[in-house]
Amino acid sequence: MLIGKVCSIRGGIRSCVVRPIARLFTCPSNMAKSKFEYVRNFETDDTCLKNCYIVVRLDGRNFHRFAEQHKFTKPNDNRALGLMSRSAHSVMEELEDIVIAYGQSDEFSFVFKRSSNWFKRRASKLMTHVASQFSSSYVFYWKEFFGDQTLLYPPSFDGRVVLYPSNRNLKDYLSWRQADCHINNLYNTVFWTLVQKGGLTTVQAEDRLKRDETVTKRLKRPNEEEKDVNVTRSRRKVQAYHCDIIGDQFWQEHTDILEDDNC
Amino acid sequence: MLIGKVCSIRGGIRSCVVRPIARLFTCPSNMAKSKFEYVRNFETDDTCLKNCYIVVRLDGRNFHRFAEQHKFTKPNDNRALGLMSRSAHSVMEELEDIVIAYGQSDEFSFVFKRSSNWFKRRASKLMTHVASQFSSSYVFYWKEFFGDQTLLYPPSFDGRVVLYPSNRNLKDYLSWRQADCHINNLYNTVFWTLVQKGGLTTVQAEDRLKRDETVTKRLKRPNEEEKDVNVTRSRRKVQAYHCDIIGDQFWQEHTDILEDDNC
Amino acid sequence: MLIGKVCSIRGGIRSCVVRPIARLFTCPSNMAKSKFEYVRNFETDDTCLKNCYIVVRLDGRNFHRFAEQHKFTKPNDNRALGLMSRSAHSVMEELEDIVIAYGQSDEFSFVFKRSSNWFKRRASKLMTHVASQFSSSYVFYWKEFFGDQTLLYPPSFDGRVVLYPSNRNLKDYLSWRQADCHINNLYNTVFWTLVQKGGLTTVQAEDRLKRDETVTKRLKRPNEEEKDVNVTRSRRKVQAYHCDIIGDQFWQEHTDILEDDNC
Amino acid sequence: MLIGKVCSIRGGIRSCVVRPIARLFTCPSNMAKSKFEYVRNFETDDTCLKNCYIVVRLDGRNFHRFAEQHKFTKPNDNRALGLMSRSAHSVMEELEDIVIAYGQSDEFSFVFKRSSNWFKRRASKLMTHVASQFSSSYVFYWKEFFGDQTLLYPPSFDGRVVLYPSNRNLKDYLSWRQADCHINNLYNTVFWTLVQKGGLTTVQAEDRLKRDETVTKRLKRPNEEEKDVNVTRSRRKVQAYHCDIIGDQFWQEHTDILEDDNC
Repeated sequence: MLIGKVCSIRGGIRSCVVRPIARLFTCPSNMAKSKFEYVRNFETDDTCLKNCYIVVRLDGRNFHRFAEQHKFTKPNDNRALGLMSRSAHSVMEELEDIVIAYGQSDEFSFVFKRSSNWFKRRASKLMTHVASQFSSSYVFYWKEFFGDQTLLYPPSFDGRVVLYPSNRNLKDYLSWRQADCHINNLYNTVFWTLVQKGGLTTVQAEDRLKRDETVTKRLKRPNEEEKDVNVTRSRRKVQAYHCDIIGDQFWQEHTDILEDDNC
Repeated sequence: MLIGKVCSIRGGIRSCVVRPIARLFTCPSNMAKSKFEYVRNFETDDTCLKNCYIVVRLDGRNFHRFAEQHKFTKPNDNRALGLMSRSAHSVMEELEDIVIAYGQSDEFSFVFKRSSNWFKRRASKLMTHVASQFSSSYVFYWKEFFGDQTLLYPPSFDGRVVLYPSNRNLKDYLSWRQADCHINNLYNTVFWTLVQKGGLTTVQAEDRLKRDETVTKRLKRPNEEEKDVNVTRSRRKVQAYHCDIIGDQFWQEHTDILEDDNC
Repeated sequence: MLIGKVCSIRGGIRSCVVRPIARLFTCPSNMAKSKFEYVRNFETDDTCLKNCYIVVRLDGRNFHRFAEQHKFTKPNDNRALGLMSRSAHSVMEELEDIVIAYGQSDEFSFVFKRSSNWFKRRASKLMTHVASQFSSSYVFYWKEFFGDQTLLYPPSFDGRVVLYPSNRNLKDYLSWRQADCHINNLYNTVFWTLVQKGGLTTVQAEDRLKRDETVTKRLKRPNEEEKDVNVTRSRRKVQAYHCDIIGDQFWQEHTDILEDDNC
Repeated sequence: MLIGKVCSIRGGIRSCVVRPIARLFTCPSNMAKSKFEYVRNFETDDTCLKNCYIVVRLDGRNFHRFAEQHKFTKPNDNRALGLMSRSAHSVMEELEDIVIAYGQSDEFSFVFKRSSNWFKRRASKLMTHVASQFSSSYVFYWKEFFGDQTLLYPPSFDGRVVLYPSNRNLKDYLSWRQADCHINNLYNTVFWTLVQKGGLTTVQAEDRLKRDETVTKRLKRPNEEEKDVNVTRSRRKVQAYHCDIIGDQFWQEHTDILEDDNC
């Protein structure tokens, strides 16, 4: 700081400048610090309402481009899904109070229990920690899933926080995401079947599906797993499932995920 | 999803369960999706007030432990600072409208211009994108700075958003962070001098500094660079400086960073 | 506006100034208006989270002074309580979706049903409407309760909004207010008994109650109604009760107030 | 409370019920109160960002109907404007830190100084106090302006809070309201001239103005004061002006209203 030497970082678009030396530090003391400290009071409180489930949802930024550049297989890439799932595990192991996570494609939702008081329920802390841990894990575990294939650049995920006051609302949220996954999956499977086995171009396939929106229903759904995953945690034992979470059975078998509405 | 097969992910604390097959999908149609879609309305708006600077500050989580486990040199580790700086560059290159960034130790602040409309100024989008891009970059560029030394686990950074309505407030914020850096640096330098050259234990050194809080003032400040960095951007040319940002000179030389208060 | 004549309003501390006439209007057109209209975008959204009860609580400003100046009887003034209750009725008749109100002393709480969409659940609209309607009613109905006794000045009430996600939370909120009422009432009754019948000064009575905090328990509670009221509404038929709302019986008899948690 | 007697309040739509006596109070102690006190933590912080002007704007609810029922003269009723202005004075005298107020028709804006710390800048406190004081004053001072004409029912005003970070933004806000007033006034004056002097019905007049939107421009603006008012305060001396606040002159003559942007 005292010494105004410019640090050249890397080539490319960045250039570097050397600056003169040894300007005196303007405010050298604790006194100076306290003079500026009033700026702390501009922070605002973003505590989440108590007794609500806190959902943090991440979405990949420009993942269409990312998938192409990294040659993800279509319609689903098992390596990519595995890496998403692995990163979600990392989040659940490192952060407190996440009771279930659900993901598909380039998105993942994390549910904090309604009675959680982690980071005093501050929305900004919760969502940035999830986004950060997920993103660093995605790069960290890349090799395990993609082997020698190089990761070309660091990817990014954005996040948001949504609160749900009742068990019904939370289950409907997860059902919404899974129904969305189901529909996308069906569409993508048909689309890539038309391209890969039917010899259509991507434009033709898109056009075909637009003209006849019911084509998906006539077609037998392909005998494959759908590509989503939900991850639960109990006493820090994290498990992954591929199953229906819209019906009642999953919830009857996992009674420890939800807390009583009447509390 | 249809098929409830459990995916074993990795060894260690996680165990795996195989579940019965082929439950019927409860809600197979678009109709089902729209039935659940009401949950979208639980999202709340977190748009940042217009005509204010938006500051996103990141802080490393448990970086004291992280620094020890990765044997960072004391009081400052040039590799670690370089990696922080490199990750900040990555954020500034990938995200829009950041006009200056300032960092030290395990924290970094990013300033979006007051007229920015990136992501409609939604606080959650801005802070999670910064946290995510920074974190994935930290792992991605690790090798460049630490060479063969292995990164043991993916690190995490939390973030927050603070708004500043005037140029004076913003400059005072940056001055606050730099004064804080200066004080920490002074303390740490003396502390590690007592340990490394004075033969004290860390407990003795801490005790000594506690008893005599003015010791830092009697001691001549060591002839070294202080370990902070600020990064500016102009027409996407990102530059790093080590210089005083508390005084006027920096701001007089970089008139393009701030926008007029009277707009 | 064109004519800069100063309007003298009333005597007392306000003085008046006559200003020169007929300055030209600077921005005479719709164009001008639209030039300034960007300031609308500084409004921020304060929509209340869905599926939560919305409670607006009003508190009288400086009502200790107000009560003295208007010679309210101690410990409770039936006229004042009646006027509070009448004003609450006015609020419930004029505003939508309030299912119960509870008041004591100079405070009143209004509960909007959890599924309400009145004013799109905007917190500012709800709380200002309640505060405004209550305050104008208080002055409007003053005569009915205080007869010839003059209202000396217009009183003021502040308000706040609190959200409760479950029936349990809402009932506990109302119980909290009623327990508070009960305790205050007990204290005040004993205090004024010591003053009015025991011949102590107010200072002596306060001192006595401080020294022996259990005095209230030794004393038989006076055979009087406690001075609170709760008001419910069903098909716009507004009713007032003085009864226990902490126990279950009230809620079992009024099943239409709460909505199911599991929705 | 102990005694479940129902209080009949007033006739009309409300009916009354007598309930049985002397249910035991469920939670008679301080202990009970503290058991419920957790509900306090559901309150959220709504502190206004520092160093911004805080504007509270009130709008009359259903004032079109109110004006008709109270036979306000058209296009402007001097008594009604005087009462609005008187109520605004009351707000400025009773509340802290309001530096200017501006009103027209059934709306009024109040500007708190940017450095105000009244009620810790809590938005809910500020807007409900303004709404409450204005509304109680409106009823309290009705007689002074309307004499023997009876106020038929208590009116209501809603409020909102908007923050403005710079002097330019605040001036543009006030200009926006005044330009709006000017346009409405022009329209209303022409409209009522067509009705009262031109013999058109209100429907015909509306239709005529719709067909020919430029009619207002062709018409000479009537030689009358426009009906708005702004009120300033200096050392608790409250003054009312009718003048242009869009141009610079007003602001040059009242330099004490605004605070420096660069603070």
